Amino acid sequence: MTLSRAERRQRTEQRILQSARMLFAERGFERTTIRAVAAAAGVDPALVMQHFGSKDDLFRRAVQAAPPPERPGGPEELVEYLLDTLGLKMGGLSQQSLAMMRSMLTHPEAAESARAALGAQIERLASAIDAPDARLRAALLTTIMLGVAVGHQLLDIEDLHDVPQQELARVLRPVLHSLLSS
Amino acid sequence: MTLSRAERRQRTEQRILQSARMLFAERGFERTTIRAVAAAAGVDPALVMQHFGSKDDLFRRAVQAAPPPERPGGPEELVEYLLDTLGLKMGGLSQQSLAMMRSMLTHPEAAESARAALGAQIERLASAIDAPDARLRAALLTTIMLGVAVGHQLLDIEDLHDVPQQELARVLRPVLHSLLSS
Repeated sequence: MTLSRAERRQRTEQRILQSARMLFAERGFERTTIRAVAAAAGVDPALVMQHFGSKDDLFRRAVQAAPPPERPGGPEELVEYLLDTLGLKMGGLSQQSLAMMRSMLTHPEAAESARAALGAQIERLASAIDAPDARLRAALLTTIMLGVAVGHQLLDIEDLHDVPQQELARVLRPVLHSLLSS
Repeated sequence: MTLSRAERRQRTEQRILQSARMLFAERGFERTTIRAVAAAAGVDPALVMQHFGSKDDLFRRAVQAAPPPERPGGPEELVEYLLDTLGLKMGGLSQQSLAMMRSMLTHPEAAESARAALGAQIERLASAIDAPDARLRAALLTTIMLGVAVGHQLLDIEDLHDVPQQELARVLRPVLHSLLSS
């Protein structure tokens, strides 16, 4: 089977995006070079520029969010959904999320993406919480999960490092429930 | 009163450190230049180098942690201490903490400082929690507070932006309590 030119182009792009996500997730925007992305993807740096235009555009494409999942039903489902979101049950967040989070404090574009993604999550959670301060509770739920993800997967805090994921979920579950009920 | 040479030197250093903390807190390590720090402090860039040697050394001095506060007593005091730590009651974290946190995901030195500071906090909290999984609970308490601080003070999430600090504390208090008791 021979690939069409468009198919070959798409495969190359996907390979470059994959390498870009990996490096952005590991080093952040500032310390990732087009040269390093090209090397990891096994292509020429000029080809990366040809496909993506600039490091900013490559970053934008690399962290582009998937469409948000369906809003969950009751509080039980909501808590399990959040524990899933955190990636506790999936063995880690996507390279895409990690790439965005790694640079969210230092790169304006990544900060904007992070605010948009977290804002969408707050919106979805708030509509599932039955309390007058639903938005505040949703915002705290979201930032709490963010903190655990940052500590566990980006800062690699020693005391969280070797904890089995279901152990983390066991301790976090009542915490999340306590935010859902006023 | 005339100042001794040593006193003048110390005042200049303090002024440079203050400007450095402000800029590191705002822009992170990578995007902060010696030139900008010098301009903010109203001194010549050469003077900054003369006092601090390099941007790395300046950063190290700027984020140097104060000695840890006394370990609090019972769970009630512990929760209030944590809410204080977060800066909810103090109108914001110190420039020093913000400078360290801003770069903790992208600058290895800042990540190391953050791990050390968070590790010390986990240690202190764990010794105040009476449960077999005290360290895990202490680590989650610490990362939860980190997440709220990041969302509130570094990412400036809209839903947390205008919330009065005692309102945040009111919703967070039961969350922290639920982590302290197994």
